[in-house]
Amino acid sequence: MAAALDDNLTAVLHGIEDLRLEQRPIPEIADDEVLLAMDSVGICGSDVHYLAHGRIGHFILTKPMIIGHEAAGVVAKLGKKVTNLKVGDRVAIEPGVPCRYCDHCKQGKYNLCADMVFCATPPYDGNLTRYYKHAADFCFKLPDHVSMEEGALLEPLSVGVHACRRGGVGLGSKVLILGAGPIGLVTLLAAQSMGASEILITDLVQSRLDVAKELGATHTLLLSVDQSAEDVSKKVHEIMTEEPNISIDCCGAESSARLAIFATRSGGVVVIVGMGAPEIKLPLINALAREVDIRGIFRYCNDYSAALALVASGKVNVKRLVTQHFDITETDKAFETSRRGLGGAIKVMIHVQPRDTNNPIKF
Amino acid sequence: MAAALDDNLTAVLHGIEDLRLEQRPIPEIADDEVLLAMDSVGICGSDVHYLAHGRIGHFILTKPMIIGHEAAGVVAKLGKKVTNLKVGDRVAIEPGVPCRYCDHCKQGKYNLCADMVFCATPPYDGNLTRYYKHAADFCFKLPDHVSMEEGALLEPLSVGVHACRRGGVGLGSKVLILGAGPIGLVTLLAAQSMGASEILITDLVQSRLDVAKELGATHTLLLSVDQSAEDVSKKVHEIMTEEPNISIDCCGAESSARLAIFATRSGGVVVIVGMGAPEIKLPLINALAREVDIRGIFRYCNDYSAALALVASGKVNVKRLVTQHFDITETDKAFETSRRGLGGAIKVMIHVQPRDTNNPIKF
Amino acid sequence: MAAALDDNLTAVLHGIEDLRLEQRPIPEIADDEVLLAMDSVGICGSDVHYLAHGRIGHFILTKPMIIGHEAAGVVAKLGKKVTNLKVGDRVAIEPGVPCRYCDHCKQGKYNLCADMVFCATPPYDGNLTRYYKHAADFCFKLPDHVSMEEGALLEPLSVGVHACRRGGVGLGSKVLILGAGPIGLVTLLAAQSMGASEILITDLVQSRLDVAKELGATHTLLLSVDQSAEDVSKKVHEIMTEEPNISIDCCGAESSARLAIFATRSGGVVVIVGMGAPEIKLPLINALAREVDIRGIFRYCNDYSAALALVASGKVNVKRLVTQHFDITETDKAFETSRRGLGGAIKVMIHVQPRDTNNPIKF
Amino acid sequence: MAAALDDNLTAVLHGIEDLRLEQRPIPEIADDEVLLAMDSVGICGSDVHYLAHGRIGHFILTKPMIIGHEAAGVVAKLGKKVTNLKVGDRVAIEPGVPCRYCDHCKQGKYNLCADMVFCATPPYDGNLTRYYKHAADFCFKLPDHVSMEEGALLEPLSVGVHACRRGGVGLGSKVLILGAGPIGLVTLLAAQSMGASEILITDLVQSRLDVAKELGATHTLLLSVDQSAEDVSKKVHEIMTEEPNISIDCCGAESSARLAIFATRSGGVVVIVGMGAPEIKLPLINALAREVDIRGIFRYCNDYSAALALVASGKVNVKRLVTQHFDITETDKAFETSRRGLGGAIKVMIHVQPRDTNNPIKF
Repeated sequence: MAAALDDNLTAVLHGIEDLRLEQRPIPEIADDEVLLAMDSVGICGSDVHYLAHGRIGHFILTKPMIIGHEAAGVVAKLGKKVTNLKVGDRVAIEPGVPCRYCDHCKQGKYNLCADMVFCATPPYDGNLTRYYKHAADFCFKLPDHVSMEEGALLEPLSVGVHACRRGGVGLGSKVLILGAGPIGLVTLLAAQSMGASEILITDLVQSRLDVAKELGATHTLLLSVDQSAEDVSKKVHEIMTEEPNISIDCCGAESSARLAIFATRSGGVVVIVGMGAPEIKLPLINALAREVDIRGIFRYCNDYSAALALVASGKVNVKRLVTQHFDITETDKAFETSRRGLGGAIKVMIHVQPRDTNNPIKF
Repeated sequence: MAAALDDNLTAVLHGIEDLRLEQRPIPEIADDEVLLAMDSVGICGSDVHYLAHGRIGHFILTKPMIIGHEAAGVVAKLGKKVTNLKVGDRVAIEPGVPCRYCDHCKQGKYNLCADMVFCATPPYDGNLTRYYKHAADFCFKLPDHVSMEEGALLEPLSVGVHACRRGGVGLGSKVLILGAGPIGLVTLLAAQSMGASEILITDLVQSRLDVAKELGATHTLLLSVDQSAEDVSKKVHEIMTEEPNISIDCCGAESSARLAIFATRSGGVVVIVGMGAPEIKLPLINALAREVDIRGIFRYCNDYSAALALVASGKVNVKRLVTQHFDITETDKAFETSRRGLGGAIKVMIHVQPRDTNNPIKF
Repeated sequence: MAAALDDNLTAVLHGIEDLRLEQRPIPEIADDEVLLAMDSVGICGSDVHYLAHGRIGHFILTKPMIIGHEAAGVVAKLGKKVTNLKVGDRVAIEPGVPCRYCDHCKQGKYNLCADMVFCATPPYDGNLTRYYKHAADFCFKLPDHVSMEEGALLEPLSVGVHACRRGGVGLGSKVLILGAGPIGLVTLLAAQSMGASEILITDLVQSRLDVAKELGATHTLLLSVDQSAEDVSKKVHEIMTEEPNISIDCCGAESSARLAIFATRSGGVVVIVGMGAPEIKLPLINALAREVDIRGIFRYCNDYSAALALVASGKVNVKRLVTQHFDITETDKAFETSRRGLGGAIKVMIHVQPRDTNNPIKF
Repeated sequence: MAAALDDNLTAVLHGIEDLRLEQRPIPEIADDEVLLAMDSVGICGSDVHYLAHGRIGHFILTKPMIIGHEAAGVVAKLGKKVTNLKVGDRVAIEPGVPCRYCDHCKQGKYNLCADMVFCATPPYDGNLTRYYKHAADFCFKLPDHVSMEEGALLEPLSVGVHACRRGGVGLGSKVLILGAGPIGLVTLLAAQSMGASEILITDLVQSRLDVAKELGATHTLLLSVDQSAEDVSKKVHEIMTEEPNISIDCCGAESSARLAIFATRSGGVVVIVGMGAPEIKLPLINALAREVDIRGIFRYCNDYSAALALVASGKVNVKRLVTQHFDITETDKAFETSRRGLGGAIKVMIHVQPRDTNNPIKF
């Protein structure tokens, strides 16, 4: 079920606070690509950041760019060499396509490829549009019982999977997660499913902790901005049966990176997912002398399959993260909702097709 | 709750088919040991094997040996230097105590220590007895809601955990388990909890597969002895959505090792837990040329905590494995039940104390 | 310096014992390829095997195939998208080009790609020819002081590097290498350079051990065919200061795989490089119960850069391996020399250009 | 060859700037210990720091403490259970003995043991004394051709080995080492021997770089204090053939940690060995977004054997590090020389026995 082939309504970011819906030509596909009739696109914090600031770090908007990268669609057309998909397949889209030639690509770290083409990261277009083309091997076919929204949610979930893998979460891990926003929550889901036996999650907002608790956090801890990292670390140690061996910071604030360092057990790992100021002050020696490793993450790499398997198996409930649904024609309102956290917004979903159009099993 | 200090009824294996109940002196403890009033002891295939054959490989019974090593007890007395436990603590017993001095011990592979003192492995005594002493740091305190039987079951569960860790089971793994006996089942439980998204388990007996299904296997496959490994491998590939990247053989037969090799995806891992004939014929080149690694396991190492966390969290139901309960005075009958698989026996538990004596929460 | 563009003399294997020199058209290149004027091509055991048997395992010669895959050449022409090379660059050729799209490719294990196009592996042509095209990113530019022959030798050296990496050779490793043929010798060179502190190498031929000794083996051990693996294992343990923690079998015989298992320290690794009979009898339980892992290797993956760095640094002397040099017009004689081990042949090199033509620094 | 058993001249640090030579009783040994007649003890920066400041971080001198921990001695007496050594054995001393009971000890990370008894770290005594007792399994027997001084130098060399292992240095690594002091130099030696193909070392002092060059650094780079980390990073990239994938900071200054982050290739590792101020300002996001991991080291763990193998094989020349030799009676002068870097001091060695007394082969 797709739009007429002369309608390619598209959400284009022209500049700061200048997001427009306009018609765009339907893309031509290469031999290894598919044309996708888009269905569901989630709004990510980075989308909102580009709208508000026109840049993230050294990625700067210098010309109009289609927004959107947490997405799922239906295969409308196949490139000549495509064999893994067929027309009509419902797919989740891993939004970055690497060069396939550099050392990073050959060594299994394609997320670090310097020539990555990534949706809605300047200068590359995203996929909040009716028709979008993508490399076929970065499309993941959804089973019938997985909805298009769940497909779109594989994007943030893959971030959580990648963070937990980088941290080495496994059976019996004691995990501290800092921040119960969308990324904190998907990290929680991933950590649970990888065998973590205890997960404490912190936030400044009780309602977010309530969702975390509902999703299975073992402990929650409400923080206030005036607490020292050392004091919070002591509380964390009191609450958990053991010091966390893995801490995952999903905030990106200096204070949370500090807390992660103080709280983590010797020999453990601090993963920092959220990214904040270019320079921060850290008690680095505390981490170094206890061999607590500090690791960042950049998107994900070979994580989509696992994220899909997790959702398909029913082990995690990502649907709980979606709080509002809008049509593509309501894109402005959707962004406003996400940006201001209206109505307890966690994840806001934009539908290019009426909701449930492409789901064999309705949600 | 313990026996009078002049009663130390003990199950002693004097030779092939010569298992006797007799009084033994209560052991003196060293400074780093505790005296344990034993509660529950499971019967393992190796116990039965010693009873029937007097040996396993180069471990040979040359003098009377107390039997039993899957056990839990209550701390009755503390060595002077013991600080991690107190009298009355209910504990699971990790049955092997390494030398703590050799390279294997220092490198975190204490299970390979050549001077390991391991319960009921000649010449060392086991713990199917009223009073038993053990290194305090190899006793794991049970939370109130974990039963003594569950404590005893941490021993086989740790084997499953170790097997899955050696195989690298993680989020999204596709796992083939060969054999649905007690070890196959605990491996299934461990694999699930580590994030495997698909688990196919095979056996020659449908009733065992039924239990596996009940415990959460994604697929079961009933085998017959006349099938070739190549043919079964094809069936496995038809049933699973992808070729398994990890196969865990819990049988130890030549045929199952062969199947594991043929069935495993290139770049994957075959873990062989069960051990059979000293020499077997293998299609080794098939594994080598596809970089399918072959790994054995020897008991477990640093796995008890994770096994305990798994049970304590309620994520796995090990209790389902226990099919019969006997008093220590019925040891003969218990062994007979286990040995002959009477009444669908999976795991047979011997109680040194009346069942539930030491459980604050009853089962 | 290259042949006229109307001369493309090529060594084509038409069938068993039917290797012909004939003219072939000069290949057209794709955008990501380069045309190479070939210089040096070494003869590998697999080339000889195809000549003698027309097949290796399930790779079967069904139509004429250009032979040769240990090679270096000079860039004669660039595809449109090639930026890493320029015309005139002297390059070593990594002979396999993977699909770049499958999971193995994305996960950094491109050697396991099922769609690999590999020189002189049916049905794909090799590069013992005047003009050959290849993916530019699988060509490695040689520094001026590295000769074309050394460039060709990166191919077997990469096998040694891959074997040592798969075995985990590192600082202080005690390594047992079985077989002192070309692959045993490059494995020796790689193991040394990775920090192995003790290397014992075995062979049935003393002259090969003499070369190994000259190249830096700590110990050599001459074997005879009538010795049992158990007995040789004891000798190995007597000679080395410690049991080897890594054994690398470069023979592929059942007897050497058996020896590798018996000799390796508990917790160690057996790497089997050489491949022999489809089925072999193994004392598998000995490896399993001591957690000695068994790993095969398939060619190499991300190893060429390290092999080149090793040669370029002058740390290893691969030139010592080349025992004879022939012109492409003498291809028959070259194969005969390699096949029969004439004149103490280790590695036989065929020159498409007169030797030293393309070396700025002469050898 | 040892002092009379009534002479136990000992260097005792009583407080800041208060280091005294005095007689101490000869220690009694436990069953798993040996008594050592000390031979050579190197002076480490930490020894000098305790002399000058009475503390390092939270390790505070609160009572007199014997100084010295880079040491080698001769076995004078054996505990009852000691089997790995005999009287007269010349040994290098790994100066920390862990508890052997905690999780870190069991998991192969004994350097993180909270109950570690470490020479000359308050409150534990060191070994600049005539007679010293130590756990036998932390004594490493020296071959005849390895001198006592080399034995003492295994301590700093093990730091270099541990740093390189934590960084993952291997064949083909491109390594940046910041600082050419004793730790920078041993790190250089370790990195070379592990297969690094290119090593650039920086310092503020040309004479130290000259030693590094002599020891085999591929490149040296003289820095001045007014350069920005960004600018130096560019220079590093210009000099090396590729961006370093591993950077090891042996300074501990904020500026060098910053440089390490900027200079390291995406996906690489920064190891910080030197430790400076408790809080430092870092461009953390630069590391995080490129998945450059930051790892500290704490002493060493299972590294002494490899360090000994490295010296025994003759692959590295640690003797070049020793610039001055003093008798224990000249301890004050030795410390002054080390502290002020007199006469180009790199490593200052104190001899408890006249130099070469215990070396079968003289140096």
